[in-house]
Amino acid sequence: MAEYHGLSQIFTTTETSLYNNLFKSPNPPFHSPTALILEISPNPFPQTNHSTTTNFVPIIKNNYNFDNLEILDHELETYRSKFNGHGHDNSNNCNVYVAGHVLVYPSYNGFFEKPGLFLDQMFVRKCYRGMKFGKLLFSVVAMQAEKMGMGMVDWLVADWNEETINFYEKMGAHYIPEYRLCKLYGDQLQAFGRKSD
Amino acid sequence: MAEYHGLSQIFTTTETSLYNNLFKSPNPPFHSPTALILEISPNPFPQTNHSTTTNFVPIIKNNYNFDNLEILDHELETYRSKFNGHGHDNSNNCNVYVAGHVLVYPSYNGFFEKPGLFLDQMFVRKCYRGMKFGKLLFSVVAMQAEKMGMGMVDWLVADWNEETINFYEKMGAHYIPEYRLCKLYGDQLQAFGRKSD
Repeated sequence: MAEYHGLSQIFTTTETSLYNNLFKSPNPPFHSPTALILEISPNPFPQTNHSTTTNFVPIIKNNYNFDNLEILDHELETYRSKFNGHGHDNSNNCNVYVAGHVLVYPSYNGFFEKPGLFLDQMFVRKCYRGMKFGKLLFSVVAMQAEKMGMGMVDWLVADWNEETINFYEKMGAHYIPEYRLCKLYGDQLQAFGRKSD
Repeated sequence: MAEYHGLSQIFTTTETSLYNNLFKSPNPPFHSPTALILEISPNPFPQTNHSTTTNFVPIIKNNYNFDNLEILDHELETYRSKFNGHGHDNSNNCNVYVAGHVLVYPSYNGFFEKPGLFLDQMFVRKCYRGMKFGKLLFSVVAMQAEKMGMGMVDWLVADWNEETINFYEKMGAHYIPEYRLCKLYGDQLQAFGRKSD
């Protein structure tokens, strides 16, 4: 995804940092950075109605046909899921594969009554595009924000990405072209650690 | 501030919502939405070295001269602080006034190793501009991010606000014009609460 956005030169994520940032928080999902993983399988996912201690219930859809996954996805083994859709490690006999993800964290805008979610990343692997998985991931985020009584979902989009902007506008989003991103990081941020004034 | 940005029509903040969003969280400062208040006084603030249970120590500067505050600030009474700089209510005999604020919340970018702060609002009241208070507020946020081992501070700036963009670039920020804000809120967000697909 960083390659797709031409941001490989700033990419510093590691497996350890992902673990620390996403899985070590004692907060329930959506109260700290939270990733939703889009998993697909040639076998039907069980429609369990399991009680959960979190505020999110996995969404299961069985209306896709993935009988010929090896033909569709040439990196199938790389993306084999270590989890079976219920958070249990089941790596040995799990015909479940990662097709995409969305990454959000709680946000707040002082002009709004209610807090929101900031959508940091949304990605569907190339071979799974055109199947409305982007719409599915985005809808799950918006539904979750609504369910949690939040007032907004915010995200950034590259101005050259017309197709994506159209997609978001169709989903009901307001495109606000006048706001631009500023970012302080690296040496320029570290310089503030050495200042005392 | 919403007026200054032409956003009065989307402004839904209330005193209750500010209280709920900023003061009810059990998290320490900077682990949930956090406001830093810029307070000024004609009297010197005591330079206390008080131990604190939080991860932020108030920053006190006594190198300003505010002897003639009534002449400078025509809304002095409106902005009289209810706190004496140490969090204690001391409203009856407190010569402390609010001159500005900055509002941040923890953020995360999947391309970066370390989490960051999102700077949602920074405001200095008109009669206190030109005194480098904006620089002070911004520096405190950047120093705090550094101190907490974070990797970035992000914020948005209006593209017509050239003076502000120049200010941020002088502070070491990268201006990234290609990213635009998208926002889902109001009726369009609520519509997702009624969807089941």
